[in-house]
Amino acid sequence: MTDAHSTNQTIRRVSPTLFSFLSDLGLRAVYPQDIPFQAAQAKGKELNATIGQITDGHGNAMTLPSMSSTLSGMSPAEANRAFLYSPIQGVEELRQGWRGWQRRGRDAAQASTVPLVTVGLAHGISLAADLFSAPGRAVAVAAPFWGNYRQIFSTRTGARLLTAAAVVDGRYNCDAIAQALQDLPQGEPAIAILNLPWNPGGYMPTVAERQALRESLVAVAQMRPLMVICDDAYAGLVYEDEVPRESMFWDLNGAHERLVPVKVDGITKELAFFGGRVGFLTFPFPPDSEIALALESKVKCLVRATVGSPVAISQVIALHGLRDGSIEDEVERIRVVLEGRYHRLKQVFAAMTSRYLTPLPFNSGCFALVELSTELGQSSEQIRHRLLDDYDTGLVSIAPNFLRIAFCSMESEALPELVHRLQLAVDSG
Amino acid sequence: MTDAHSTNQTIRRVSPTLFSFLSDLGLRAVYPQDIPFQAAQAKGKELNATIGQITDGHGNAMTLPSMSSTLSGMSPAEANRAFLYSPIQGVEELRQGWRGWQRRGRDAAQASTVPLVTVGLAHGISLAADLFSAPGRAVAVAAPFWGNYRQIFSTRTGARLLTAAAVVDGRYNCDAIAQALQDLPQGEPAIAILNLPWNPGGYMPTVAERQALRESLVAVAQMRPLMVICDDAYAGLVYEDEVPRESMFWDLNGAHERLVPVKVDGITKELAFFGGRVGFLTFPFPPDSEIALALESKVKCLVRATVGSPVAISQVIALHGLRDGSIEDEVERIRVVLEGRYHRLKQVFAAMTSRYLTPLPFNSGCFALVELSTELGQSSEQIRHRLLDDYDTGLVSIAPNFLRIAFCSMESEALPELVHRLQLAVDSG
Repeated sequence: MTDAHSTNQTIRRVSPTLFSFLSDLGLRAVYPQDIPFQAAQAKGKELNATIGQITDGHGNAMTLPSMSSTLSGMSPAEANRAFLYSPIQGVEELRQGWRGWQRRGRDAAQASTVPLVTVGLAHGISLAADLFSAPGRAVAVAAPFWGNYRQIFSTRTGARLLTAAAVVDGRYNCDAIAQALQDLPQGEPAIAILNLPWNPGGYMPTVAERQALRESLVAVAQMRPLMVICDDAYAGLVYEDEVPRESMFWDLNGAHERLVPVKVDGITKELAFFGGRVGFLTFPFPPDSEIALALESKVKCLVRATVGSPVAISQVIALHGLRDGSIEDEVERIRVVLEGRYHRLKQVFAAMTSRYLTPLPFNSGCFALVELSTELGQSSEQIRHRLLDDYDTGLVSIAPNFLRIAFCSMESEALPELVHRLQLAVDSG
Repeated sequence: MTDAHSTNQTIRRVSPTLFSFLSDLGLRAVYPQDIPFQAAQAKGKELNATIGQITDGHGNAMTLPSMSSTLSGMSPAEANRAFLYSPIQGVEELRQGWRGWQRRGRDAAQASTVPLVTVGLAHGISLAADLFSAPGRAVAVAAPFWGNYRQIFSTRTGARLLTAAAVVDGRYNCDAIAQALQDLPQGEPAIAILNLPWNPGGYMPTVAERQALRESLVAVAQMRPLMVICDDAYAGLVYEDEVPRESMFWDLNGAHERLVPVKVDGITKELAFFGGRVGFLTFPFPPDSEIALALESKVKCLVRATVGSPVAISQVIALHGLRDGSIEDEVERIRVVLEGRYHRLKQVFAAMTSRYLTPLPFNSGCFALVELSTELGQSSEQIRHRLLDDYDTGLVSIAPNFLRIAFCSMESEALPELVHRLQLAVDSG
């Protein structure tokens, strides 16, 4: 049952009454065959590089001690807070603490609201979609992209996703958003999604590329109102010294009066707490300004109407971490582990011989993306299934011809074998 | 900034660009002045009976030891699971464990799906609204009702809330849903919300009333397709021996072919874990039946598009509790504490002398509701403010003339003083 039509037919046949209640959204909804679907299929495989969560390569979480220590010794006051309701906007100290974390190295002149707490990053993006997207709204994103944007913007709000290639001739395409919007009538508002470091491609722009990207988006804003949703899920996970780690939110903040950046980030990857579900939604306005309060009112209305209140226990754990003097070191320690895997994977790619496989540029995040040559005559979905069936190995396929390797959940030592199997699966096709 | 219009004007003035992006929902959204708003105003008051979370009366959580003990000794395997992603549908053992919990005392012939995990009960209701509500859809609910239904159904999905009085002549009104729908054209589908034990009224129907309620809803289903969302947030918290504790979901399951009950419940109140945000959505079909899988596909699509995935850490804690042999005793212990407060409050009400105050019948849940006489000439909102300002006491006002007392968060010993102050505030008006 993988398409909406057959799903709807089943419901109509078994319960015409229930079928008669399905909303337009209810009729459209069907669980997509993207990452969680594919990850479920890869469960138990010897090599499983499907899920974008950071593990030791054996399915064990790599946690920050200043957070995970709470589970063997939460203070009574913390435990109390963990079990009771959070304020709708989030725990105040955590909001302030996260604002400090976001603004490391920023100067006071750059405005940003006190972040509102959401249930993970997806909830932050979903709330932004509820507030700012609409049927027919143009939403531009560089492709390939995180499939859930489709469910969030297209399935849920009826927006039109417009895309352009994220990588052209082996280089990051700073004009992807502008190209995706080039046929849109002048003046028509558009939303852009900027996911950097990038999922699924693991890329973060260089200094020169950031500048070009900023100029390209400002040029778009000269043509139309532009909201840029900065999905900063992988913030900080950058592995080349010369590549800046800061969110593009700061570069776009104040860049043009018709360009509104919105920052979505969270503890999921930044503090390695995937199961906690704490994200943040931040706007480019001074804290406690009138517009900050107006937006807070709207977001709180929708937080309440979607999930009641944010997760208290996970906020308590994150706050414990942020108050601990060692959190930056702990985050850096995880980054260094991933950096090691990154360098190993680059080596392995450099030695790759298959003429059908081209790794896309990557320097950050949790993933590397491999493009299959069209000469191969097989889809990435076919290769994924062969890897599952014949090579005990899980990767994520992204239509039409990309395979995503989540090195964040693989040991360094396993990466050569993983790529070896990938080549075998491709060359035996 | 408490109405959508002024909120929108502020945004338009400060950032016309951002304003140009507001969706219809974005324009409608504004944080309502209901329970969390009022609870925030009552923070720090000597007597605070605003929030429906179970505490010792001094703001401390009353937790189940089999769950809260995890915070001082979670096993490595549990901690690992707590920090990593949950499956989109929820942790399988918890889903099965909760199904067993739901079905205590039920016979195998009564069909129910394996519950899907949501982010608290509000998320379960919100997902049901996404799937089954729509602009103009009739949604019937007995009044007064939990204000968040308005945000979930009306603000978010554009449904029409239709109401009838929950209590008439001092008795629970079993025909409230039927009366709310009486002017709706025959054949037009309607959703009903059945919240029992009731928030804000703290009432659970007797054996005879359950029968009458069931018959009334079956009669509605003879006129039109009827979906009944059973909001079982307060399941089990019943304080009179002769009143059945089971969810009406079981009475309605199979009652009529055009009546579809949907069960929403969760650990929030049933296992006293308010900050954990774990709820469940259950349909009246056999597990693994085709329609169960079709609905699961739709719900998972929307879970992913709204929150990414459910909260892992809270599921781990709940599962630990459900596996512990003592959980039923622990839940009963909390129920007995609340039962003591309930009896005390009934005594205090019985001795109340103000002619302007009429307690509504109550026997369950977390709340008691007091109706202000129209002769008083003052709204419940005015009395609430007087209680805050002059009597250091927080209650929740529900328009036009109800005050809600959350005895779940008050010590027994404080209840006489609370009601004393309420009488003073009313009589000094």
